[in-house]
Amino acid sequence: MVAPKLNVSRRIRATPYTSRVESLGVSGYSVVNHTILPKGFEKSVEEDYWHLKNHVQLWDVGCQRQVELKRKDAARLVQLMTPRDLRQAVVGQCLYAPLIDHQAGMINDPIILKLDEDHFWLSIADSDVLLWARGLAIGMSLEVSICEPDVWPLAVQGPKSDALMAKVFGDMVRDIHFFRFAWLPFNGHGLLIARSGYSKQGGFEIYLDKPEMGAELWDALWDAGMEFNVSPGSPNLIERVEGGLLSYGNEMTNENNPLECGMKQYCQLDGSIDFIGYEALKAISSKGPDRKIRGVIFDGSPCPPCQFPWPVLGMGKENDRQIGTITTAIWSPAFKQNIALGMIERHSWNDGTQVKVESGDGLIRTGVVTKLPMSKKRIVSVD
Amino acid sequence: MVAPKLNVSRRIRATPYTSRVESLGVSGYSVVNHTILPKGFEKSVEEDYWHLKNHVQLWDVGCQRQVELKRKDAARLVQLMTPRDLRQAVVGQCLYAPLIDHQAGMINDPIILKLDEDHFWLSIADSDVLLWARGLAIGMSLEVSICEPDVWPLAVQGPKSDALMAKVFGDMVRDIHFFRFAWLPFNGHGLLIARSGYSKQGGFEIYLDKPEMGAELWDALWDAGMEFNVSPGSPNLIERVEGGLLSYGNEMTNENNPLECGMKQYCQLDGSIDFIGYEALKAISSKGPDRKIRGVIFDGSPCPPCQFPWPVLGMGKENDRQIGTITTAIWSPAFKQNIALGMIERHSWNDGTQVKVESGDGLIRTGVVTKLPMSKKRIVSVD
Repeated sequence: MVAPKLNVSRRIRATPYTSRVESLGVSGYSVVNHTILPKGFEKSVEEDYWHLKNHVQLWDVGCQRQVELKRKDAARLVQLMTPRDLRQAVVGQCLYAPLIDHQAGMINDPIILKLDEDHFWLSIADSDVLLWARGLAIGMSLEVSICEPDVWPLAVQGPKSDALMAKVFGDMVRDIHFFRFAWLPFNGHGLLIARSGYSKQGGFEIYLDKPEMGAELWDALWDAGMEFNVSPGSPNLIERVEGGLLSYGNEMTNENNPLECGMKQYCQLDGSIDFIGYEALKAISSKGPDRKIRGVIFDGSPCPPCQFPWPVLGMGKENDRQIGTITTAIWSPAFKQNIALGMIERHSWNDGTQVKVESGDGLIRTGVVTKLPMSKKRIVSVD
Repeated sequence: MVAPKLNVSRRIRATPYTSRVESLGVSGYSVVNHTILPKGFEKSVEEDYWHLKNHVQLWDVGCQRQVELKRKDAARLVQLMTPRDLRQAVVGQCLYAPLIDHQAGMINDPIILKLDEDHFWLSIADSDVLLWARGLAIGMSLEVSICEPDVWPLAVQGPKSDALMAKVFGDMVRDIHFFRFAWLPFNGHGLLIARSGYSKQGGFEIYLDKPEMGAELWDALWDAGMEFNVSPGSPNLIERVEGGLLSYGNEMTNENNPLECGMKQYCQLDGSIDFIGYEALKAISSKGPDRKIRGVIFDGSPCPPCQFPWPVLGMGKENDRQIGTITTAIWSPAFKQNIALGMIERHSWNDGTQVKVESGDGLIRTGVVTKLPMSKKRIVSVD
């Protein structure tokens, strides 16, 4: 598929950083939550991958919109929306959590930020969680205010993130633990800064709640980043597939449940908490899920982008029976193989299972199922 | 703003017609409901405008996703979601309807298709109405099945639509009244065909519920259309602004209520029906809305695309006070002026009010407020 231009309008929102990513030569956009997400600059995906693993990048992730829940029933509603046990959550914590419906179908997989006992932000993937939360609240007559605050995350990712962030915000950023946040001053304004981000290379997400400071914040980080070889960036497909980071709408949809998505540790099924979909999820758990998200490594020349799920076929006993699908795939320069994420059936999901992949270009390639995150040694079993 | 490429993935869905629009040279995409919407082909927007007004076009509007409500409480839930009185709606009818929340904020403005007394499709604009409906249904313990059926609308628009459709489906299509639908056979399969569409040039929308027939359906219409000068197309910005057709996310958002959006005729406020937001909408109605969507015609050279709302300033008594915003604007070859849609405050919304428009390119232009749909004579009052 060719990549035609993205037409712009008010409906597909720009971010406070758009002027900066445009002047830095953004070459591609995606759309997430009715907002543009820069997806590429001058570097190739491979060059960007190595840069992210060695230096530091600024990512315009303003599309990670927040759904704010506040007031008396806010904590109750958040817990109703997720099987993750939030009873021990503390103010200042970030919690990755599946949101599910009455059939245990995935609605979204946000980071929940606990700002106060009755105040939460859900930093969401690509679906209108605000409408889901508001529908539930109205239907159940809950006392909760739900809105999308004017908050625009900017991510700083890569091994030199601490050094860059300390230069701009002071050494206190170094004390922020993984998946915790703190409020730090910037030009007279307090900013929520979390140690988190959609890569495995370390870094921070800055939740800017004053969009008119967007250019100022970007420029401060950019200027301070010169000595660290800073670059504009975006979630890197190679890095996220290697790291096993999932994308709602790609690896999973409403057709999938959290047990299929490897989120068992976020499913409290002992009946001690009340959430929507408990009965359905409990039933799936008793039986065990039929499929799970796995890595797949496969050989041959660099594969095309995966726009439709690609069939994964069994070998041996399961020869040529479809035993799963690939949902995201890309060539890995580190593995020197194609790497992919997909849903694989129970009898074929074990680490090392040999499979075949129909890679959308007419080829059938030999591959192997791996656990996530992927490790380089897995390659060996393909040969 | 430049128009970088749209990156593709499974999350931003292709349609059953994508292969056809690509082979016909689609040049731009937008994204609606997590699905691509072709936005341009070889013709310029102006050439496309004249073609649409004189011939017939095929539009891939698969992004108009359906939210299906079925079973015992389906009719009750649909009525709860809209202030439009649905009591007289009949099977086979299409009803344009605002969906609102508890504060009377717009959630969406779908076409509701009544398939049976307890079976509806909501053909939606760009927001996840499925999550809203499902949240309400679960919260209120309603007996209703809610899903997104595998249905992909294809629009046939333009004055030669009847001739083309009759050639493919037989003369029975001519008997379908405006905003009504019928089931007609195509290659052994029944298709829902409505006389509707997102233009003022007449035409049909075919609700294909068998995506594997997409190419076959497109090709049949394409081949039959040769004698009518058929062309691929998409909603045309010039034509929709002239015609006063609104776009959710552009002309209105959740911040707006249906009275601001010119939908008074779809708001039953006598208390005889039960819908969410009744109290809020009744209060707004008593006071009268503070602003309304209007047309604005303004002079000068062709304006740039409107990505952020542009300020509209008053003249005379209201000199230079901001009295509204423009949300969509484009040069009209018929009017030989720029034409726009926007929200205009009460004291300035009358037909013929003189205003100034800050058109995003540093210019301030003289303009005039007009009713919708626009009529060409309005131009006179600008001079």
